[in-house]
This record gives sequence, structure tokens and C-alpha cells, in this order.
Amino acid sequence: MVLPMNRPHFLLFGDSITEKSFGPGGWGAALANTYSGKADVLVRGYGGYNTRWVLFLLNRLFPPNCRTPPDAATIFFGANDAAILGRTSERQHVPVDEYKANLHKIVKQMKNCSPTMLVVVITPPPVDEHGRKEYARSLYGEKAMELPERTNEITGIYAKQCIELAREVHLPYVDLWSLMQETEGWQKKFLSDGLHLTEAGNSVVHQEVVRVFREGGLGADDMQHDFPLHIDIDSHMPEKAFHKK
Amino acid sequence: MVLPMNRPHFLLFGDSITEKSFGPGGWGAALANTYSGKADVLVRGYGGYNTRWVLFLLNRLFPPNCRTPPDAATIFFGANDAAILGRTSERQHVPVDEYKANLHKIVKQMKNCSPTMLVVVITPPPVDEHGRKEYARSLYGEKAMELPERTNEITGIYAKQCIELAREVHLPYVDLWSLMQETEGWQKKFLSDGLHLTEAGNSVVHQEVVRVFREGGLGADDMQHDFPLHIDIDSHMPEKAFHKK
Repeated sequence: MVLPMNRPHFLLFGDSITEKSFGPGGWGAALANTYSGKADVLVRGYGGYNTRWVLFLLNRLFPPNCRTPPDAATIFFGANDAAILGRTSERQHVPVDEYKANLHKIVKQMKNCSPTMLVVVITPPPVDEHGRKEYARSLYGEKAMELPERTNEITGIYAKQCIELAREVHLPYVDLWSLMQETEGWQKKFLSDGLHLTEAGNSVVHQEVVRVFREGGLGADDMQHDFPLHIDIDSHMPEKAFHKK
Repeated sequence: MVLPMNRPHFLLFGDSITEKSFGPGGWGAALANTYSGKADVLVRGYGGYNTRWVLFLLNRLFPPNCRTPPDAATIFFGANDAAILGRTSERQHVPVDEYKANLHKIVKQMKNCSPTMLVVVITPPPVDEHGRKEYARSLYGEKAMELPERTNEITGIYAKQCIELAREVHLPYVDLWSLMQETEGWQKKFLSDGLHLTEAGNSVVHQEVVRVFREGGLGADDMQHDFPLHIDIDSHMPEKAFHKK
């Protein structure tokens, strides 16, 4: 048995939905709990970012041949890229072809950092336009634009390209956009403001990431604790449990 | 502006109360959320461990002059050391003088790893003997021992020695044992089974750790994000925001 400080670690890379993943009921914290004693979970979530802006961070985050690369990473962008031109969030808009190309650049940079990294791509969640409008009214009152800054249909186009990219480069993916819409009442059940996740929505992401990690050979049950469990320690000879096997 | 992958990081070192700190409503996850975009939080929680057993892990966790030491660490042991001899959890018992000496060894090892590390000592929480008995009955039924395996009075003796050590070596500390008992109904409000923390109990630990970190110069508000906020990015010239200042 080795008892390293440097556990395997997983990196969650994305926008605000990743940034908030350690909030109450968040999917990132739940993932850290699932891998308790086995792997660390680090968050690199950038609220408001699209795939164009995040490219500027790649060389720092994933330098070529990096010393201690993550064992797995999630790429979870698109909710901001899919903001519609001519509406309130247009500055975040990225054309869908560029979105797909940017995702590919991110994947390539991660694989250059470590060819063995398990990279998982997650589509943006669906958009509840009614929820977005309510949210805009709560912020801007009557001045809120009548036309939604994101629509479920357009975000779906981005989700489709996200999946297409994952298939082309043979990466596992989570089709969150489709999956969530299979549940009756997904609009309020999974989304708090039409875009961000409720605790139930976080739970869906957590379950899906656990599933693809397991299918990719990184199931928590398949990993060892890097220390003896306390029940395996003989209180009269504790040193025995810590000898390397 | 530098955009490092290697953010400051905080290490939470302790027993099951630390191990479970990324569970629902956990204080570790809340701390990670408080320092979102500014510092990483790593958990090294060892369920059931006392300070005697955890010494075997120290050289791996905190090697002398380690390359990337934590910027801050919490030491949160004592709940198991205070298990009473001759009762169901006696194998975890560590005499109180040894407990204090072991804490000192942990502190010294951390400071050898990095003299500038902000080390915070946390006392064990109070014990609700009635809650422990209910919990034992739920596990063992009528076979449950009538005498509690931990008492609040004895755990209080350990808490006192924990504080004395912190004062002797001039470290900030959280007197969780006393603090929680200032609240009416602490037994059920803060403890789920007489020993582990409810969400409200987790919240107390989170608030206290945030306080001592802030007082130690590591307040989240005093730390910079290591990336530009999206509102500071000019969508027509995004590269500007990423140039090093």
C-alpha cells in the first residue's frame, strides 16, 4: 500500500454551472463526496464565459506535458455560447461552428497535457424560456426585454454539435439537454432560473458524471483508499496496518 | 495578472467529521464555495482515526520542505481519542496527554513542511450522550451498552487540552466544544447522532473556519480571482482582459 499525498484528481472545467457546483446540493461537492478518500475534485468554473474566452486560459490550465495532470476532466460549456445575437446577452454569443471548433481545441489541449486523461464532454442543460423571462423581470422589471436571450431550441443546436464533436473524437459525453427533458416538469424541477441548476438538477449531473467515470474505468468502487480503514487497524499494533503491502 | 493552475489551496485534516465535510450541507464544500475561483479545498479526512494512528500518515501528507504545501490547514481531531476505556469504542481511545502531544507533532510536521502555512486547530464538538445512546440502540438494539462510549464531560477535557496546545504554540483555534453549547438545544440542532454534524452544525464550523482564515490574512474578499471576471471582458477585444497586468 502506498500512502501518497498526490491522490488522483478530477478537474471540472466549465462556466457558472461548474463554478456553482460546490454550492448547496451542488454536483461538484457530491462528486467529491462520492470519491471521498480516493480522489480530489478541483473546480475551474468561469461564470459567464463562453468557449472563445476560455481559450485564453488553456495554456495555464493545461500546459503541454504537465507534471501532475488530472486523471479525468469534464468540459461543460455552451450555455453562454448559445446566447442569441441582438438580445440582452449577445456579448456572450459564439457561433455554433466556432463553439464546436473551440471544444475541439480544449479537448486537444487536455490530451496534449495527458493522453490518458479521461475527458468527458457535457452538453448545456435545456433552457426554460419562461423561467428566464421571470428571472429577467425580477432583475429589470418592466424594462426586461420581451424576447428571450436564450431559447431551448437554439441551445439544443449547440448541444447537438457538442455531442457530434464528442463522437468524432471518441469521447464519452452526457447529453444533459435531452436527458433532462425526458422528465415531466423539467423546467422547474431541474432549473432554478431557467438556466442554472436546482438541487435536483445538480443531482442529475452528479449521477451522469459518476456513470461515465465508472464506464471510463474510474468508478469509485474500483478505486482503493490510499490509507487503511480504521476497522483494519489493530489498536495494539497499529503500525502493522501502515506497512506497505 | 497571472493565471496559474496552481491556486492557493487549503487542506482539511481530521477524522470522520472532516471526511464527511463534502456531504450534503458539509462545511468543507461550503468552504470551497466561499473561496470559489480563489483557492482549492482538499480533504484528508480519516473516519475513525485518532491522533495516534494518523501520525503514521504524516510523512506522506506533509513531507519536510514539500514542494507545494497548503497555504492553510485545519487540524480537527479528538472525537475518537476521547472514546472511553472499557466501553464499546475503547480501541480508539488515546490518553489526553498523548492526544495533546500528538497534536503538537502534527503542528510541527506541518510547519516543517511550510513555516508560513496558516494552521488552525479545531476542538472536537460536544457530545450528546442521549443521542449517542439512541444511535447505539438503532444499531445494536437491546444489546447496546447502557454506558455511553463517549461523554460530553470527557470530550471537554480533550477540547481544553487542544486549546491549551494551540495557545502554547500560538496558533488560531476554534473552540467548537464550547461554542456549540452556547446555543439552546445544541444536542439535536448541531448533532445528528450525538457526535457527527447536522447541516446547522456544519454551518457553525464553516463560519468559524472562514473567520479564523480571514483573521489569519486569508479572507476570501482579500484574495484575487486568478482570471478576469466575464463582465470585465470586452467582447470585441477579449484578449485585452487576459494580458498580464
